[in-house]
Amino acid sequence: MQNRRTERGAFFPVFWKTDSHYNLVDFHKVFDLSQPEEITIAVEGTYNIKIDGKAIAGFPKTITIPKGHHKLSLKVYNQAHVPTIYINGRTVKTDSSWLVTFEDKEWIDQSGKVSDQSGTTWLNAGSANLNEITDLPSQYALPVKLLKPVQSEIQQDGILYDFGKETFGFLKLLGVQGQGQVAIYYGESKEEALSTSHCETLDQIEIQNSIPRDHTLNLSKAFRYVYVVPLNGVQLDSIAMDFEYAPLEDKGNFICSDAQVNEIYEVAKYTFHLTAREFFIDGIKRDRWIWSGDANQSYLMNYYLTNDSPTVERTMIALRGKDPVTAHINTIMDYSLYWFLSIYDYYRYSGDPSFIKQFYPRMKSLMKYCLSRRDQNGMLQGLAGDWVFIDWAEGLSKEGAVSFEQVLFARSLEAMALCAEIANYPNEALEYQEMAETLKSKIFDMYWNSEKGALVHNAISGKPTDHVTRYANMFGIFFDYFNEDQKLQVKNKVLLNADVPKIVTPYMRFYELEALCAMNEQAYVLDQIKSYWGGMLELGATSFWEEYNPDKKGIEHLEMYGRPFGKSLCHAWGASPIYLLGKYFLGVKPVNPGYTTYQVKPQLGGLQWMEGTVPTPNGQINIYCSSKEIKVRADEGIGTLYINSVNKPKTNTGQIVHLGGDNYTLELRPNTNYLIKYKAL
Amino acid sequence: MQNRRTERGAFFPVFWKTDSHYNLVDFHKVFDLSQPEEITIAVEGTYNIKIDGKAIAGFPKTITIPKGHHKLSLKVYNQAHVPTIYINGRTVKTDSSWLVTFEDKEWIDQSGKVSDQSGTTWLNAGSANLNEITDLPSQYALPVKLLKPVQSEIQQDGILYDFGKETFGFLKLLGVQGQGQVAIYYGESKEEALSTSHCETLDQIEIQNSIPRDHTLNLSKAFRYVYVVPLNGVQLDSIAMDFEYAPLEDKGNFICSDAQVNEIYEVAKYTFHLTAREFFIDGIKRDRWIWSGDANQSYLMNYYLTNDSPTVERTMIALRGKDPVTAHINTIMDYSLYWFLSIYDYYRYSGDPSFIKQFYPRMKSLMKYCLSRRDQNGMLQGLAGDWVFIDWAEGLSKEGAVSFEQVLFARSLEAMALCAEIANYPNEALEYQEMAETLKSKIFDMYWNSEKGALVHNAISGKPTDHVTRYANMFGIFFDYFNEDQKLQVKNKVLLNADVPKIVTPYMRFYELEALCAMNEQAYVLDQIKSYWGGMLELGATSFWEEYNPDKKGIEHLEMYGRPFGKSLCHAWGASPIYLLGKYFLGVKPVNPGYTTYQVKPQLGGLQWMEGTVPTPNGQINIYCSSKEIKVRADEGIGTLYINSVNKPKTNTGQIVHLGGDNYTLELRPNTNYLIKYKAL
Repeated sequence: MQNRRTERGAFFPVFWKTDSHYNLVDFHKVFDLSQPEEITIAVEGTYNIKIDGKAIAGFPKTITIPKGHHKLSLKVYNQAHVPTIYINGRTVKTDSSWLVTFEDKEWIDQSGKVSDQSGTTWLNAGSANLNEITDLPSQYALPVKLLKPVQSEIQQDGILYDFGKETFGFLKLLGVQGQGQVAIYYGESKEEALSTSHCETLDQIEIQNSIPRDHTLNLSKAFRYVYVVPLNGVQLDSIAMDFEYAPLEDKGNFICSDAQVNEIYEVAKYTFHLTAREFFIDGIKRDRWIWSGDANQSYLMNYYLTNDSPTVERTMIALRGKDPVTAHINTIMDYSLYWFLSIYDYYRYSGDPSFIKQFYPRMKSLMKYCLSRRDQNGMLQGLAGDWVFIDWAEGLSKEGAVSFEQVLFARSLEAMALCAEIANYPNEALEYQEMAETLKSKIFDMYWNSEKGALVHNAISGKPTDHVTRYANMFGIFFDYFNEDQKLQVKNKVLLNADVPKIVTPYMRFYELEALCAMNEQAYVLDQIKSYWGGMLELGATSFWEEYNPDKKGIEHLEMYGRPFGKSLCHAWGASPIYLLGKYFLGVKPVNPGYTTYQVKPQLGGLQWMEGTVPTPNGQINIYCSSKEIKVRADEGIGTLYINSVNKPKTNTGQIVHLGGDNYTLELRPNTNYLIKYKAL
Repeated sequence: MQNRRTERGAFFPVFWKTDSHYNLVDFHKVFDLSQPEEITIAVEGTYNIKIDGKAIAGFPKTITIPKGHHKLSLKVYNQAHVPTIYINGRTVKTDSSWLVTFEDKEWIDQSGKVSDQSGTTWLNAGSANLNEITDLPSQYALPVKLLKPVQSEIQQDGILYDFGKETFGFLKLLGVQGQGQVAIYYGESKEEALSTSHCETLDQIEIQNSIPRDHTLNLSKAFRYVYVVPLNGVQLDSIAMDFEYAPLEDKGNFICSDAQVNEIYEVAKYTFHLTAREFFIDGIKRDRWIWSGDANQSYLMNYYLTNDSPTVERTMIALRGKDPVTAHINTIMDYSLYWFLSIYDYYRYSGDPSFIKQFYPRMKSLMKYCLSRRDQNGMLQGLAGDWVFIDWAEGLSKEGAVSFEQVLFARSLEAMALCAEIANYPNEALEYQEMAETLKSKIFDMYWNSEKGALVHNAISGKPTDHVTRYANMFGIFFDYFNEDQKLQVKNKVLLNADVPKIVTPYMRFYELEALCAMNEQAYVLDQIKSYWGGMLELGATSFWEEYNPDKKGIEHLEMYGRPFGKSLCHAWGASPIYLLGKYFLGVKPVNPGYTTYQVKPQLGGLQWMEGTVPTPNGQINIYCSSKEIKVRADEGIGTLYINSVNKPKTNTGQIVHLGGDNYTLELRPNTNYLIKYKAL
């Protein structure tokens, strides 16, 4: 996945350490059989198979396990691909209950790890739903479907094809004949495809066909437009493409009275799906890589749309890699920190502690790396090799200890404390919690400027500057690090203050709008969504962009990184309305992990009505809300519906609780249709 | 290499963590060209190539580098095989001066590491003499030559072939016709090959030939005898084999007046060559694995025979693997410790500090692991997952803190101190030296029993036992840990004491005889060599064994591990006479690293004469010694010849220095033929 990017025809892999799979893996499971059982075996790799420790000669494809209590084990070596096994019998089958080891021989006795007498750590096997013996994991590819261009246009040297919207997949040249080359120039915009000298991706294909043949290209590309230029007497009939997609089901939904918001939601969904592949990647043209900060937003959107846990887990594992830690994730300090937050979020939405239990040692070693790089004030400054990213923004200072990084660091320590508790290391949980508290108070001592009513941006040589940016302040809001007075000051003096440099990436607008939502500024946020994302739609966007600055004009919008078409026009972080509308308009979020308890706090923010679904681990929550009534139904968990009404609302069931003022709550039980009418209307 | 063992037809890989190569590697070198230069490029992997940071589209096979100062870089991804590059131009060529990184982004500023501004560590590329563009590193295989059996014998179900001596390679079935199977049973002994139910290795081949064809088996095997049993109407003409060997040149030699010793030396050489493959392995039938304790002896023999540095480096790297350290090397505590000793020995014999400089960080992390496992007395006891090996010997106690392990541990700390100095970490050198001193004094406090005149075997719960074994005592001798009085006591009360359990493996006899040689007991050692290794020859050995206990009879000699043919009859550690004869009879060893200074101290030990060669980094030292005269010639370095004579010897050149008593020395200059005659004779 990290090696599929090209730039103008040159291979362009990531610029950080990439780890391999374990190439020698031992799998085992113990069975109690009431009768002998024949099993079918398929393995990717060189292997042996043992019953009760005794190896069977050769590479058997079927064996019979005698009745009784038996241990079945396989040891598999595979350097090129991940060692995998497939066993199918009447009751003996491969699944995630099998235990695996790469024979680390580590003896860890405090935690939930299973260790045998030799000190070998056994973990649960990774598994995938490949249920046919012919479904080789190493050959796995996402499904494709055939798409044809919707339009074509003759240009000077060839034909420009338009697929109607941003798309992704394998180009097909149809009916190609002759000897020579075909040059292919891809564009997310028409201008890019026609710029043979500056388009970001291109292909050059050698043709030697005496009769017409079809060619499908090996490497997928992102494009809406394709400019095909046959050279030297090569001819072709037309083109098409194999559109490649991850088959993730939409379990969440949102629709409302505002057609523009609905269109924004649909394009956000499409953007999300294009970038939700084997892993959650940043953009489909560029970088096509897995980035922790980008992925953190994809996870959150996923919880409100596809709620696919395997893709979240795969992405988190791929980002972390293996020990030893030699650099920050993606080389970016903030991206290591987002990773901790992502793991705890995943637990909160899924309720599944197994990822934390299995990966706690790697959380710990990454945190150890971060802690080892603190300055004399216990804060993180960029050291050699560290990229302090924050956001794409002109003139953004990364000097000294940046407050934004410390706020993320504090939250990461809190996440570690929670995860240590879950992984059954209570003493470590206490240590992390203490470190978090210490750091939080240092943050306020160092950065809080009461005159500015804000955390300042950075401190140089231990001295705070008086420069204010939005970053630390907006995270401080939804991390709940401010007191009520500070919150109000931050809202008015930073978030709603046009003099503080504005944010021009959907990436940081995600958090900016989240902070405003957390302060019940839904009406303002809705306006922002409509003007910012709506602004991209007005410019013809069919997917949301890496960056959008409304002040730019024309082809300026396509530029980035000093390249005329450098900008990615389909970037995962552009899809955040999915999250904002689900979490802060429908108002649904888990309170206890996995929605065992949850809250529903619908806020129309000026909409006449809205209707939607939020997925939960084993079901969904449906909400309809208008200015007159609320309807709610959930499949699982105990919810609390928050209603803001000047008079006591009526409900078809249950007891409305008055919280004081205009605030009422209603307890939601599973599988019950609730109808709440505002008495006052 | 670690995955080529089979046991009765079942795949049998190692039982410890194995690491992969780095799958994404950046290579670069800076050139100053007086004219433009076209280069040819071959790469194993997906790659890009950049001049001065600018990528060239596609995967070019030739490019032209403009004249002037330019940086050429390639980034290569390869999961299945090691990323490799081959560049050939007039002056621009790939070699070990290219720098590589896997983009660890680690910033290390104290040492000899080259780091760029981003903190990336650049190391020298590994290189091999594959000078044709078609020599793909991934396809590298050792050369083979055709061998035919010397004898065959019809047996009940098939034919038993004898290749005349222990051999290793790919069996060939010649002129095979019919439909069905051929069963192949291998034996290092005739008994083993004929024991279809208990031979250690076997093959079962499917045949479907309407006309006669030859089949060469895919996996090499070790054997002298092969019992071929065609089943179900399959016929074959004969068999042969592709004998596989590492093309290592013999640079050392030894010949003497004793024919039996000469035969022992020849069989030791053959044993060494059979086990010196891509790496130094333990045995060719079993385990075919790389074991640190075994390899430590192979390195030392290598310095007196083939002096091949690449095989030493490859083996040391393969043993160590990558960080993090999760277990001892080969899971064996002593084998981690031998690894430190091996590295320092390698520097002593080769004079090349580059291995230490590049791998010092991995030395440090392995030592950190060892140090983290000390008990409250600062000693190493076996913890869960640790194998305390010492030697194969019945009833050998591994309980508590074994003195042998502490002696190795102390020596390892001394080796770390020396390596830290070489790698330019003087403070760490001091720390290791202090730890070594502390441990050594603790060893004597804990284990020295003045009544027994020996270090006792172990201490249980901090209390020394009164059990004496040879292990710690013999290492203490040649590590020079005893004072003169202790040495004499150890010699008489342990080494020459028949009541102390005797050693039955050539492995530990290596060190036992080394200790005796270090105490000038060459005459005794020669007797031991003749009876112990000679004893194997008398039993028909054509290579030396894993274990030899003269008290056993008949097929008892073939048994081990509870299996009738479990013993390996060609084991690297059987070849130690190569080392003993070179180092302690010819008496040659480096004093300063790389033979810049060295000593020659010939000791006939009862031989009438001996003649031999010892390789040095860039030449050799030739010695002839009889009871009447010594001849010496060296290509490099400054030597000191030690002569023991009651009267002052005569020399054709130079000044004999009288050291007092019967001891004289002569300084040896390069490229000079020295002839020394004992005046008294």
